[in-house]
Amino acid sequence: MEKSRIDKQMAFALEIDKEKEIKRQTRKTNTEMENDAEHAWHAALMAILLSEYANEKIDVLKTVTMLLIHDVVEIDAGDTYAYDEQGQKSAADREMKAAKRIYGLLPEDQGKKLLNLWMEFEANESAEAKFAHCMDNVQPVMLNAADGGYMWKKNSIPLSKILKRQENTKKGSEVLYKYILENFISKNVENGNIIHDSVLPYSHDSDK
Amino acid sequence: MEKSRIDKQMAFALEIDKEKEIKRQTRKTNTEMENDAEHAWHAALMAILLSEYANEKIDVLKTVTMLLIHDVVEIDAGDTYAYDEQGQKSAADREMKAAKRIYGLLPEDQGKKLLNLWMEFEANESAEAKFAHCMDNVQPVMLNAADGGYMWKKNSIPLSKILKRQENTKKGSEVLYKYILENFISKNVENGNIIHDSVLPYSHDSDK
Repeated sequence: MEKSRIDKQMAFALEIDKEKEIKRQTRKTNTEMENDAEHAWHAALMAILLSEYANEKIDVLKTVTMLLIHDVVEIDAGDTYAYDEQGQKSAADREMKAAKRIYGLLPEDQGKKLLNLWMEFEANESAEAKFAHCMDNVQPVMLNAADGGYMWKKNSIPLSKILKRQENTKKGSEVLYKYILENFISKNVENGNIIHDSVLPYSHDSDK
Repeated sequence: MEKSRIDKQMAFALEIDKEKEIKRQTRKTNTEMENDAEHAWHAALMAILLSEYANEKIDVLKTVTMLLIHDVVEIDAGDTYAYDEQGQKSAADREMKAAKRIYGLLPEDQGKKLLNLWMEFEANESAEAKFAHCMDNVQPVMLNAADGGYMWKKNSIPLSKILKRQENTKKGSEVLYKYILENFISKNVENGNIIHDSVLPYSHDSDK
């Protein structure tokens, strides 16, 4: 017998519980590693709080939905660290396969809608996708800075790589890009937690 | 010097990180205890998936925002188990004090807005508050059932108390109320995980 509409929705709702077990490369304020569900909750709530700083007008519900679902694929594909270049290359294929299986648990109309929304997030072209990526970056930078730059130091992350990644933050919000550079990143460059191999925008770095 | 608007928003965003450490009385599918942030993420995403079953038309973003913030007060007030009657009585005062402190970290306009939204959730009268409470109930019932009724059995929860609590589920969605009784609760009454001290609606219980 084919499952009912609600059965399919509940099967998906139960499956995504597994997202709570996927550890990220970010420490919480209690120094334990954060998981994907905690990160998605935090980033979605930050999107509501900070939407006023988006470069372009955004549909907040669409952005929040993107953030709530953006890491569901990692249930099958695993978390790929932002600075793992080899991993990033192979992640796209694994994540698409995962998206098809997991969103495929839903009723067809709803599964397609969420799959398309996740693909829109990944393409990073719409105003909502750009702001969602901005939150996806600002949230861990905030936590890393609150933690004294521990993960940057541990993984020997150079400023050039951070700036490259933060291009996405800038695409979503110039205001928040400037804020995190000045408040979260520059301090950790000054104290040596981030390897100083590049020029830091909005600082007196260019005098050096 | 007074903090800037973004400084206040970031102070709030960092403070709520603590919600990830507040354990609930629900087990995840891996049998570990769930925390408030994981629960809020799960319930918010379920609200998006299941909004079609709300008794009244709801503003989904408002409902999702309520769910994302509804347990922030527990950072100061702690989690009160749904079936702890003594704890529930004193929780209201502790939670109001917590709400004022934590939402007070935000810029005044935003802090007021979120405090009012949380109070609207607590009052449980608007269409959005009722559906948010429905999700706040359906999500743990789904997890408890998936876990073989472990927490119901462990805490010797009688059906009468579950039905009393699930009145809120019914206020938000008759469809989901019927679904969880038939699919998640009745089985656990039959196999003795839930103490059978009351008549189960939508079953042949009334013949007994």
